Amino acid sequence: MASFKTLIRVTWVDTDAAQVVHFSNFFRFFEKTEEEFYQNLGFNFDQIVRKHGIWLPRVEAHCQYKKPAKFNDVLEVELTVGKILEKAVKYLFKVRNKATAEIIAEGYLTVVSASKQSGKAVKIPKEIVNKLKPFLSA
Amino acid sequence: MASFKTLIRVTWVDTDAAQVVHFSNFFRFFEKTEEEFYQNLGFNFDQIVRKHGIWLPRVEAHCQYKKPAKFNDVLEVELTVGKILEKAVKYLFKVRNKATAEIIAEGYLTVVSASKQSGKAVKIPKEIVNKLKPFLSA
Amino acid sequence: MASFKTLIRVTWVDTDAAQVVHFSNFFRFFEKTEEEFYQNLGFNFDQIVRKHGIWLPRVEAHCQYKKPAKFNDVLEVELTVGKILEKAVKYLFKVRNKATAEIIAEGYLTVVSASKQSGKAVKIPKEIVNKLKPFLSA
Amino acid sequence: MASFKTLIRVTWVDTDAAQVVHFSNFFRFFEKTEEEFYQNLGFNFDQIVRKHGIWLPRVEAHCQYKKPAKFNDVLEVELTVGKILEKAVKYLFKVRNKATAEIIAEGYLTVVSASKQSGKAVKIPKEIVNKLKPFLSA
Repeated sequence: MASFKTLIRVTWVDTDAAQVVHFSNFFRFFEKTEEEFYQNLGFNFDQIVRKHGIWLPRVEAHCQYKKPAKFNDVLEVELTVGKILEKAVKYLFKVRNKATAEIIAEGYLTVVSASKQSGKAVKIPKEIVNKLKPFLSA
Repeated sequence: MASFKTLIRVTWVDTDAAQVVHFSNFFRFFEKTEEEFYQNLGFNFDQIVRKHGIWLPRVEAHCQYKKPAKFNDVLEVELTVGKILEKAVKYLFKVRNKATAEIIAEGYLTVVSASKQSGKAVKIPKEIVNKLKPFLSA
Repeated sequence: MASFKTLIRVTWVDTDAAQVVHFSNFFRFFEKTEEEFYQNLGFNFDQIVRKHGIWLPRVEAHCQYKKPAKFNDVLEVELTVGKILEKAVKYLFKVRNKATAEIIAEGYLTVVSASKQSGKAVKIPKEIVNKLKPFLSA
Repeated sequence: MASFKTLIRVTWVDTDAAQVVHFSNFFRFFEKTEEEFYQNLGFNFDQIVRKHGIWLPRVEAHCQYKKPAKFNDVLEVELTVGKILEKAVKYLFKVRNKATAEIIAEGYLTVVSASKQSGKAVKIPKEIVNKLKPFLSA
């Protein structure tokens, strides 16, 4: 199984008054990783909309927080594909502190393939499914 | 069972290029509701820190998205207490479109009581537990 | 001269590791105040788009920070109209700590009236100009 | 005169319902660039606090918006030092669309050197001033 990894340095605005990354920002890190994953596979949200007429709205989001992340920490976010259904994909994320290798957070995002016109769930384009398959976790 | 409700009007910055509220912002709406709930019970995060020497870090966050929310929609967020453990509380949230009463999103936040000094989980102060109990869902 | 005032309670996510409101969030407070001002005048961004076919993109933003704002502080944001040009409006903002009446920040936003179709600057609809005039500062 | 440049790819959450980057996010891009600039010079906010006992709070922020930036655009942010005073530094920023070289936005941040203990403005440490000088614009 392949996985996709990217690095994110914690910026000042990511932190809150507890001097750690605000919990909601991990979801932004997940999505940024998903964007870079697509970029790496050779496409992006906008191209998917234009080419296939579909959006990828999120229908479920989950995160467990293990350790705090602080300003300027370098986080390594690892994405794998947990499940590919006909009309939905579940992405799994692991966030590690790059310096210590400790797991900071783990979570997932489930996205559906939705027609931009009707808003209804539609099949994920074959071309995209094929690119996701190598990243499917066991 | 009591519940706590608050209204949040969707602002422009809450939306994204799909012209709906960005999924990560629902976690901010959850936390804002939790803050107003505490406010309503007569305390706030800062006072808890000062009085009891504890933070309330989040250890788990979850959300299911049912319908999109748009700019200027008035959302009614309802909080109930799902579970009170010795050192943790699980808050449940339901987000409805105030105008249509449709459920927009549902989710939860699990927060632990952590010593500000040691960082370790500690018992939730009795005084707080007593105030939360009436909001415990069946 | 009339002014429009609204209250904003500082939420946890508004703060950063210096335990004060992140400077960029004041611009979000300005815009939220502008939205509530329009709401109060009986319209909103979306209705302006639909009725007049115009957006109100920001062309300039400025803020001076005088005092820090902290978690749970109640801020009073006051909006007045600094200037009405044919195709642009400059809004002035004063942010006070509600409890102490101290000025926290002062700034402005200049917005233009832009055709949604062409993207070009166009005259602000007369109907809107008339509603803004009473708020014009001397 | 030297300048510091960094690249920022626009993420989905940076955009708003007008399908462009929300104006407030340019201030976050400015600060991120400042952080990477310090990183490049061999220090960061936290180290300045620990070593010199000073924060760098922002006292003024300004931005002019020339062209919209869209999802997935690669922005090149260029930082130069506009002014070095005894207790304050003014950073100038130019944001260009990397692909077209068009100027998207221009602005500045003025930061002061403030004692963490007293909160009062203090001299910028000599060591930092020396590192900033080569980036001073004419």
